[in-house]
Amino acid sequence: MWFRETILPPSEKIADAALAHQNQLTKPPGSLGQLETLAISLCAMQGSLRPAMDKVAIRIFAADHGVVEEGVSAFPQAVTAEMVKNFLQGGAAISVLARANHADFAVVDMGMTTRLSLDGLINYAVANGTHNLCRQPAMSPAQFMCALEAGRNVAEEAALEGAHCFIGGEMGIGNTTAAAALACGLLNQAPIDMVGFGTGVSETAYQRKLMAVERALKLHAGAFGQPEILAQCLGGFEIIALAGAYLQSASMRVAVLVDGFICTVAALLACQLNPGLRPWLLFAHQGAELGHQRVLDALSAKPLLALDLRLGEGSGAGVALPLLKLACELHNGMATFSDAGLSEQEDMR
Amino acid sequence: MWFRETILPPSEKIADAALAHQNQLTKPPGSLGQLETLAISLCAMQGSLRPAMDKVAIRIFAADHGVVEEGVSAFPQAVTAEMVKNFLQGGAAISVLARANHADFAVVDMGMTTRLSLDGLINYAVANGTHNLCRQPAMSPAQFMCALEAGRNVAEEAALEGAHCFIGGEMGIGNTTAAAALACGLLNQAPIDMVGFGTGVSETAYQRKLMAVERALKLHAGAFGQPEILAQCLGGFEIIALAGAYLQSASMRVAVLVDGFICTVAALLACQLNPGLRPWLLFAHQGAELGHQRVLDALSAKPLLALDLRLGEGSGAGVALPLLKLACELHNGMATFSDAGLSEQEDMR
Repeated sequence: MWFRETILPPSEKIADAALAHQNQLTKPPGSLGQLETLAISLCAMQGSLRPAMDKVAIRIFAADHGVVEEGVSAFPQAVTAEMVKNFLQGGAAISVLARANHADFAVVDMGMTTRLSLDGLINYAVANGTHNLCRQPAMSPAQFMCALEAGRNVAEEAALEGAHCFIGGEMGIGNTTAAAALACGLLNQAPIDMVGFGTGVSETAYQRKLMAVERALKLHAGAFGQPEILAQCLGGFEIIALAGAYLQSASMRVAVLVDGFICTVAALLACQLNPGLRPWLLFAHQGAELGHQRVLDALSAKPLLALDLRLGEGSGAGVALPLLKLACELHNGMATFSDAGLSEQEDMR
Repeated sequence: MWFRETILPPSEKIADAALAHQNQLTKPPGSLGQLETLAISLCAMQGSLRPAMDKVAIRIFAADHGVVEEGVSAFPQAVTAEMVKNFLQGGAAISVLARANHADFAVVDMGMTTRLSLDGLINYAVANGTHNLCRQPAMSPAQFMCALEAGRNVAEEAALEGAHCFIGGEMGIGNTTAAAALACGLLNQAPIDMVGFGTGVSETAYQRKLMAVERALKLHAGAFGQPEILAQCLGGFEIIALAGAYLQSASMRVAVLVDGFICTVAALLACQLNPGLRPWLLFAHQGAELGHQRVLDALSAKPLLALDLRLGEGSGAGVALPLLKLACELHNGMATFSDAGLSEQEDMR
């Protein structure tokens, strides 16, 4: 299977050289904190001592979820397609963020219940939404492979176009339920620790969501320990596509900036499919969703931001992107002690 | 005294209208977390429903500190002036950040031991550095007024040039010692809870720093409870100038983005001089310096970032600035539910 092939790590040699460069810059070593480690990581991934973040690919994967019939979402299912229209018309948060960051932006239809034909919408629809994961597997093995492959293709194209970073986003009414169920399965955790209020459900809908995840985990208990089968039973087309895109980006040595809860669950799935992915992942933010911290912990991830975001769409990554850009600018643009003719630290001599 | 005059708060009426606008945008209400509250605050400060962050003034205040003779710093005193040169030559972190953010950038000499004459250096030098605060008051009452006034003038000019936001930064070898001492005095806290490793002193220098602050607090114990006198005894010219600049910005209805430990101590001083300042302050980051969290807590401040920065110079504010810009872009650029013809939340109806 392509996604199990060895993913080589970022270059340690370049990381060492990048650290040495950072320590020459006109600041006490380490005083730029996470911006230094970020710049060093980007050097190691890009194989360059002058990291760049000029070309960023943002791809939003959209799909529908059979589980919405359990009443788990605050929004009607039609909103998935309505929001996709809004993405492409430029009115959504991620559209604004993509513009502000001068990023290359596209939306991928992974299988919505509404068929749309819009400029800029890439069609990889696997089916008209998943099945209801409380009652049967969300998708067939073939559909799982299709979705993973779609993500792969999208990321491959972005890498071939020279992307310095890949950002995946998602849209799918009901997808925090699927993501919570999948995370419970992948981490063997209880639903109460993973199910949250999504983009903002009522207490009643929250109870339905919790029950739906509990039922799903009972039904698919036989899949525990097998990430591929868990993903078929509990996943969504957009979640699987994100996993495929992350795996392909890493195998083509492109840095990945992971967004919120759903993207982090996709990253967890992808890391279980192929642990070689992990060093290629940067984490944008700690969102408001309950399970997000648990999934981040499982990945030993320390995100850049914590701004109580709970929108999805890739918006957290869009907000964190300027930090990556600034980390590169500082690495490339600051003077060294010898450039500037500066006295060095006394008690380090 | 000009700095005790009433500072009017940001407009509550505009804040209400801005919140109503946020709730019309194509996202669940509140789902953009701190970016929403930020946009609303900026609207209320700017008196506009279309907040802007195009014109940002970054002003670095530089001064020397008599207390360095106690061996409290990792760097020789000459570095203050050397770094000022580096700022103006474009090689320092804050220079890179100012360029990347298209901000208007200048450096203010508040009183270094080295006299520099450089293009772009504004001369408000009060003296050749402060006195050693372990042995006598750091400055005279007249010097305090001079420094505060200088900050006022710098901020007034920026406001008259149409700045949407004022960022102050600082440079001064030894200034974390002065800031820690001043914070202890203003908050009546013990040195051990406030003195940190600055930009990176050795353990020995740290002990000297701690002892210096302890001695200074004993010497100036009579000033406790009187912020103006405490600032004269324990402050620095750049710290006082920052306080003056913050007070003037607020009185001219310009938002202030506060940088790290030293700037936050200046903000604390300014708030004690005039509590009307507080609603005009936005806080960029939680730095690595020990006392920073305590001073932020005293101001009930929740900073935007926590990236383990400990450089000063205004660099944390430079890194946080894109978040302010994005908050404005999202507020101004997103579609409303009715614009986009979107279904609203079901369980809110």
